[in-house]
Amino acid sequence: MSVRLGGNILVTGSNRGIGLELVKQLLDNTGQEDHIYACCREPEGAGAEVRLSTPPQVTIVQLDTSDEDSVTAAVQVVGERVTASGLNLLINNAAINKPASPALLSATSKADMMEVFETNVAGPFLLAKFHLLFCFCGQMSCRRSAIINMSTLVSSIEKCPQNFHIVQMYPYRTSKAALNMLTRCLAEDFRKHSILVTGVHPGWVITDMGGKEAPMTPQQSVLGMLSMMSSLSDKDSGKLVDWMGNQIPW
Amino acid sequence: MSVRLGGNILVTGSNRGIGLELVKQLLDNTGQEDHIYACCREPEGAGAEVRLSTPPQVTIVQLDTSDEDSVTAAVQVVGERVTASGLNLLINNAAINKPASPALLSATSKADMMEVFETNVAGPFLLAKFHLLFCFCGQMSCRRSAIINMSTLVSSIEKCPQNFHIVQMYPYRTSKAALNMLTRCLAEDFRKHSILVTGVHPGWVITDMGGKEAPMTPQQSVLGMLSMMSSLSDKDSGKLVDWMGNQIPW
Ligand SMILES: NC(=O)c1ccc[n+]([C@@H]2O[C@H](COP(=O)([O-])OP(=O)(O)OC[C@H]3O[C@@H](n4cnc5c(N)ncnc54)[C@H](OP(=O)(O)O)[C@@H]3O)[C@@H](O)[C@H]2O)c1
Ligand SMILES: NC(=O)c1ccc[n+]([C@@H]2O[C@H](COP(=O)([O-])OP(=O)(O)OC[C@H]3O[C@@H](n4cnc5c(N)ncnc54)[C@H](OP(=O)(O)O)[C@@H]3O)[C@@H](O)[C@H]2O)c1
Repeated sequence: MSVRLGGNILVTGSNRGIGLELVKQLLDNTGQEDHIYACCREPEGAGAEVRLSTPPQVTIVQLDTSDEDSVTAAVQVVGERVTASGLNLLINNAAINKPASPALLSATSKADMMEVFETNVAGPFLLAKFHLLFCFCGQMSCRRSAIINMSTLVSSIEKCPQNFHIVQMYPYRTSKAALNMLTRCLAEDFRKHSILVTGVHPGWVITDMGGKEAPMTPQQSVLGMLSMMSSLSDKDSGKLVDWMGNQIPW
Repeated sequence: MSVRLGGNILVTGSNRGIGLELVKQLLDNTGQEDHIYACCREPEGAGAEVRLSTPPQVTIVQLDTSDEDSVTAAVQVVGERVTASGLNLLINNAAINKPASPALLSATSKADMMEVFETNVAGPFLLAKFHLLFCFCGQMSCRRSAIINMSTLVSSIEKCPQNFHIVQMYPYRTSKAALNMLTRCLAEDFRKHSILVTGVHPGWVITDMGGKEAPMTPQQSVLGMLSMMSSLSDKDSGKLVDWMGNQIPW
């Protein structure tokens, strides 16, 4: 089992940041027979740069990961298109980080905890369930099918003492630790269907979320991630790795 | 810093199972000057055995960990009682596990994910915030103050492959992994106030949640946990340990 960066690919949160760059570079790396479903919460929004000059290999799909109806509707649209060939790669990239920096405990509400969990965990959870359905509906063998859950270094409970005093972010950290557990569970669960599930830390990247001081551009991060992803194999399913393939402890 | 099993103690989910046994044994181990706030979602409910023959050292408080208003109201009640002496020990014990066994992915909904996170993580999160407030309002030094978050072996992402095919439980596992991150963050955050925060796995215990086949009674588990808790020190803050004090990897 290895990850093929081709076939039908779905990326969430693809209107800006890392998600947008993923779509751009995937497009450079794929051919006429491949198709990218570039999902955005607001495809008509001002920031939806992905909309501009969309080539025929890209379909833009409305998908709000925090809204179950929106996820279901998006899956319907994608399902009708991919039909027998199924989905080859699902990249759960969309995420939020609330409240605004420095995000201390005293400034963090229960609503922040719930909202961040809903977008960062419940969304990927629903999409993973649908990914499995696609595999069964399609005639494709699920071989070479994969789910990438975009995680982060600060999801590591082990490493928390090393970076907690730089960024606290209770909702984000707890959500990404939960996402790591989801990754590990799905990897076990989907092994029988030969679906690889891996958590990936993109590095600290210049985006709205990463800020301007980050040391890497989205281009550099995505270049590393795609190269790393294409070499993932069975033994990497259920792991958390960074953009260079280095494993991160839970 | 070590944990004193005395002073003002708050236990959530104390009407049955491990929470009820915690209240019983804490009562045996504490004196007239100590006070236990036995919190239950439905103090008037049929199963609220803790209500029977309540001694003066126990106050029963309505507290639904999934309901912010209920948490706030309970904190108000407890706050008025503990006043200057503050809260010495908070045991976040209440939790749910949904959907019913075998809890496969296909049977698990987004609502299950959200509901379990709300009770098992957002509740303890709010109570931890209030615990800190009590420390500041009270004239007590926060020394010897502690938070115990009841976790579980299946919260361990590392150990997931060893037990996933026995119990899947996506909502419960993701919530408890998030709770472990909360424990680790709080331990870092509260170190400056000398508040110890530790995650505890009670063992597999005969309760409504643990089932009848479990190898341990609540009596045995709580006996172990209280002995273990009383010997916790600085170095154990931010760890996950079982009822015998053995550390569990994240
Ligand atoms: N940048 C970093 O340094 C860094 C580091 C570690 C991990 N990461 C991870 O990398 C991924 C991408 O981050 P980024 O830096 O590109 O963040 P970003 O610039 O803030 O972009 C986030 C993307 O997620 C989308 N999104 C948010 N909530 C959504 C929802 N409910 N439904 C659908 N889409 C939603 C946003 O769409 P809208 O425009 O509609 O809001 C946007 O497209 C995230 O998973 C993040 O946790 C980033
Ligand atoms: N039993 C085991 O083998 C085992 C193993 C590992 C970890 N644990 C952990 O140990 C703790 C206690 O488990 P247990 O076995 O005693 O479970 P249990 O027998 O099912 O009891 C759960 C308790 O939590 C309360 N609760 C649930 N939702 C609540 C809410 N929203 N607000 C307030 N209280 C709520 C219940 O009250 P109601 O009566 O109102 O529902 C009940 O008192 C849990 O954190 C559990 O995850 C148990």
